[in-house]
Amino acid sequence: MAIKRRKITVVGGGFTGTTTALLAAQKELGDVVLVDIPQSEGPTKGKALDMLESSPVQGFDANIIGTSDYKDTEGSDIVVITAGIPRKPGMSRDDLVATNAGIMKSVTKEIVKYSPDCFIIVLTNPVDAMTYTVFKESGLPKNRVIGQSGVLDTARFRTFVAQELNISVEDVTGFVLGGHGDDMVPMLRYSYAGGIPLQSLIAEERLEEIVERTRKGGGEIVNLLGTGSAYFAPAASIVQMVEAILKDKKRILPSIAYLEGEYGYEDIYLGVPTILGGSGIEKVIELDLNDDEKSALAKSVASVKNVMNVLDKA
Amino acid sequence: MAIKRRKITVVGGGFTGTTTALLAAQKELGDVVLVDIPQSEGPTKGKALDMLESSPVQGFDANIIGTSDYKDTEGSDIVVITAGIPRKPGMSRDDLVATNAGIMKSVTKEIVKYSPDCFIIVLTNPVDAMTYTVFKESGLPKNRVIGQSGVLDTARFRTFVAQELNISVEDVTGFVLGGHGDDMVPMLRYSYAGGIPLQSLIAEERLEEIVERTRKGGGEIVNLLGTGSAYFAPAASIVQMVEAILKDKKRILPSIAYLEGEYGYEDIYLGVPTILGGSGIEKVIELDLNDDEKSALAKSVASVKNVMNVLDKA
Amino acid sequence: MAIKRRKITVVGGGFTGTTTALLAAQKELGDVVLVDIPQSEGPTKGKALDMLESSPVQGFDANIIGTSDYKDTEGSDIVVITAGIPRKPGMSRDDLVATNAGIMKSVTKEIVKYSPDCFIIVLTNPVDAMTYTVFKESGLPKNRVIGQSGVLDTARFRTFVAQELNISVEDVTGFVLGGHGDDMVPMLRYSYAGGIPLQSLIAEERLEEIVERTRKGGGEIVNLLGTGSAYFAPAASIVQMVEAILKDKKRILPSIAYLEGEYGYEDIYLGVPTILGGSGIEKVIELDLNDDEKSALAKSVASVKNVMNVLDKA
Amino acid sequence: MAIKRRKITVVGGGFTGTTTALLAAQKELGDVVLVDIPQSEGPTKGKALDMLESSPVQGFDANIIGTSDYKDTEGSDIVVITAGIPRKPGMSRDDLVATNAGIMKSVTKEIVKYSPDCFIIVLTNPVDAMTYTVFKESGLPKNRVIGQSGVLDTARFRTFVAQELNISVEDVTGFVLGGHGDDMVPMLRYSYAGGIPLQSLIAEERLEEIVERTRKGGGEIVNLLGTGSAYFAPAASIVQMVEAILKDKKRILPSIAYLEGEYGYEDIYLGVPTILGGSGIEKVIELDLNDDEKSALAKSVASVKNVMNVLDKA
Repeated sequence: MAIKRRKITVVGGGFTGTTTALLAAQKELGDVVLVDIPQSEGPTKGKALDMLESSPVQGFDANIIGTSDYKDTEGSDIVVITAGIPRKPGMSRDDLVATNAGIMKSVTKEIVKYSPDCFIIVLTNPVDAMTYTVFKESGLPKNRVIGQSGVLDTARFRTFVAQELNISVEDVTGFVLGGHGDDMVPMLRYSYAGGIPLQSLIAEERLEEIVERTRKGGGEIVNLLGTGSAYFAPAASIVQMVEAILKDKKRILPSIAYLEGEYGYEDIYLGVPTILGGSGIEKVIELDLNDDEKSALAKSVASVKNVMNVLDKA
Repeated sequence: MAIKRRKITVVGGGFTGTTTALLAAQKELGDVVLVDIPQSEGPTKGKALDMLESSPVQGFDANIIGTSDYKDTEGSDIVVITAGIPRKPGMSRDDLVATNAGIMKSVTKEIVKYSPDCFIIVLTNPVDAMTYTVFKESGLPKNRVIGQSGVLDTARFRTFVAQELNISVEDVTGFVLGGHGDDMVPMLRYSYAGGIPLQSLIAEERLEEIVERTRKGGGEIVNLLGTGSAYFAPAASIVQMVEAILKDKKRILPSIAYLEGEYGYEDIYLGVPTILGGSGIEKVIELDLNDDEKSALAKSVASVKNVMNVLDKA
Repeated sequence: MAIKRRKITVVGGGFTGTTTALLAAQKELGDVVLVDIPQSEGPTKGKALDMLESSPVQGFDANIIGTSDYKDTEGSDIVVITAGIPRKPGMSRDDLVATNAGIMKSVTKEIVKYSPDCFIIVLTNPVDAMTYTVFKESGLPKNRVIGQSGVLDTARFRTFVAQELNISVEDVTGFVLGGHGDDMVPMLRYSYAGGIPLQSLIAEERLEEIVERTRKGGGEIVNLLGTGSAYFAPAASIVQMVEAILKDKKRILPSIAYLEGEYGYEDIYLGVPTILGGSGIEKVIELDLNDDEKSALAKSVASVKNVMNVLDKA
Repeated sequence: MAIKRRKITVVGGGFTGTTTALLAAQKELGDVVLVDIPQSEGPTKGKALDMLESSPVQGFDANIIGTSDYKDTEGSDIVVITAGIPRKPGMSRDDLVATNAGIMKSVTKEIVKYSPDCFIIVLTNPVDAMTYTVFKESGLPKNRVIGQSGVLDTARFRTFVAQELNISVEDVTGFVLGGHGDDMVPMLRYSYAGGIPLQSLIAEERLEEIVERTRKGGGEIVNLLGTGSAYFAPAASIVQMVEAILKDKKRILPSIAYLEGEYGYEDIYLGVPTILGGSGIEKVIELDLNDDEKSALAKSVASVKNVMNVLDKA
């Protein structure tokens, strides 16, 4: 049989979706389909074509198309959902729930119609609940439906720590559990610079400031931009997960995973350390938590459940 | 002496400038300063920070900052100018002249104040005249002031040919002289797929359509987007030129170069084949032109001169 | 279904085979099995392990194993054959025929036993005849059995031209037909620097010297090394072909392909321009040859047939 | 001033030196000079040329030359010393001392004659003592003379752990102090998979086996190869250090650094965590050691001193 390129669909032609498409194509992870609503078909096609026209200069072979027709997504190996209305300054993430849940449902229906065996990675906020919605709607096994938040949170954390210590970002690792932003449960005792625990390198108070800045990391960008929200780091985070799956890398990355008893929770999507490989989430890694961490995680779970309740009523 | 990273300044925090910054940082070509006007300082900082926060995930070490203070650009090795008002649907490139020339002058003054020995690459339209303006204002030697248009034009051409033949973009080469867009002088006899002249692979009529589509390539994206213009392929094109210089690659790339008799023209910036290396434009390559090519180039020159006349009057 | 990494088998744990394994792993093209005879099992395992131990530092995920058991090659997507006795100083390529043909047959039997649907790329000399031998023994369709020589020949040619002109190797293209080394048919009129025909950039005499140096390129390395032969450029050439297939890049590359009437020849493996993609050799590109080229190609064919006659008698 | 490529000299044209040259050129870190003794000039030139001829296919621009004349190394930014007689099966590292120290001295004299401001990285065994010898002979400041062993040791350790846990090598970190091989002081409490301490993922006994295998890692390869020793992982380790310096990455990497009181030792080169950047060793990171670690480090120091005593008597 002929060898075929992988196929990656990105739902949502906004900045995050577009940047996700670019980064995936640059790495030659596969051909890319950027899909958005019919009203945005022109811009979606325009962005795809513009990216494609950069390929001779960037030196990658990947077809990139823009479309509003899900038929074009047929046979995708992996689908990234960035669609949804964005968080605006002052808007709570919960406000987004009803609208975005509706979008998730209709998008998911289209996705699985044309790619019944795909993996789905969700970025839309509030991401824990949205991933749950997609999971339920898709009928896919739990290892195939994954949410992103922890890779981004740790990327921001790593950036701030690298700046603080004036060292390479490659040598800083971070570790988070739980939800995105305010609900993030930072695991400082699992965060290092060159393998050295951060607590022995940065004063506690300063480290706390860095954690707080990480929590508010999305808001910091929103406030600076004035209009719109972050998309470079979110897109890069997504693409790291896509690459881990498409190359079966078996990376240990934080994912929003469906829990069936892990960490004491059930029937909920929550940010936990996972092994990401050719089967999607191949394993949820369970860690012993101390009491503080347990209660922070419980708070994070409560917050996710709150949003899920909004969903149930919707 | 300690080894220092190169420093790249990108003037203009719009989509092209931002994407240029990202692509340069990805390649670890140096630290990047993204500079825009004070009114845009927040967004400029926000985009720079967002890009920086992607670095741990993308695996590059490069500082990226946003600023409105040219002091931060001090000691830049190379400066890319993307500032200027963009071309809008229906707007001729000539309409941009007066405004953008004023921007070029004030920007150039700031650049050379802080980086008196830098290279400058200009992308702002109408790019031939704008490069000339920057050259005159900067007082830099001609090899250090360069305009971009041919890399982008050939990138588009190569994309269309690769699609037509269903082959890798890496194996298609294109060649243009003269101005951007309508004034482009395509050199089909120097354009190949895998070294095979395109004329022997694609019917003449179809090839002419591809050339025409290339000419209108910027407009095609503008029309699709509805608002705004292309930025992925332009940014990638710029970065290829930046890389050629910062790595002293001595690449043969089309540049907008200052002519002193080459091709029979003087005191004009025009798109010609050049060798780009550690001294900027190290050589203008002169080719024998046939009569058709000569007259097309003359037309292109006339068009550039028209714009330059607008400048003189302004 | 879970996504699995591609699997690449390299037959022959000598320098070329080992370097091929390394370059393929660096690009994360798939997991690599390096296989050699039982007597070399230790060194083969040692080299594979040493390469694997470089992976954390080089940042690639690819398993690399050394073995003498073809069972470990099971399910390979692509197999590279570098096995065979090497050419020694003063040895004609014809001397290698009988021995290497025997090796090809036994190796091919093992390969197709465990990977009945693989692609095979042959590097063993005399490569045209050896590729033919593998083709016949394998029972695979012609698009799946490919020989390498032209990528290497043009790589050397491009290097020499880039040095001559003091420009980037990326901007030089070369084009050859026919056999390896003395039988190479250089197509100078299809060879360029930055799209500009070499004949207009380099004096005819000097260009002829460069062609001659290319023809003797393997011998130049053999003579310098004193013992052994080139392996870096050969391995890189192989990996470019492997990548073109595994990523379905549809590159235009010179391959040793089975002809059924193309260029007027039948039932012979000969160096011709091809499109290499997910189906292996997807197309043989036929060019109009002038009389000189036709007669040079005829001479090359005669030379290959001579070797094939040796085979028939063996 | 024109921008010039960095210049990297690799002393020793054996497998490690050659592979170091290749990996550095692939990354376009600079032009490479491979230098060996006059008797090996042919092979050194041959290997360099063969690597150079792979550049068009691999897509890098870097000149690579082989020579026996140190004049060709003039103005190098960084020099890697791999010269010396190799360790053979059964040979203790101490046996190498006298011979290799003599080689170090004569090589260093030549290096600093032509590149008085360079950085030097030493790989020759016994590496702690050889680095000391080079330091003394060179007259360079301590931050510019660096030995490699820890990057390689941790690369092996990371490989074994990744295999044990069936995860990506990218997510395993290791940490060692002290000497190479038997004198290695593994810091398991600073070694992780995805940030999770290895002790909580791998049984103590098994982890001890992995540490032991790491200690004997060089010997394992030597035994498998039968003749010669490891070179892929050593070369990759060197190149990671070269890149950290030439790109001013400020990476936290284990280096053999000159101590002036750190960890309680003076006037000795010892493996410690360092920050490697544009000034070479920018900092030695001091960690609190527990009693076991302190005594293991003391043993390692004693072992280095033993070798240094051999040097004093020589």
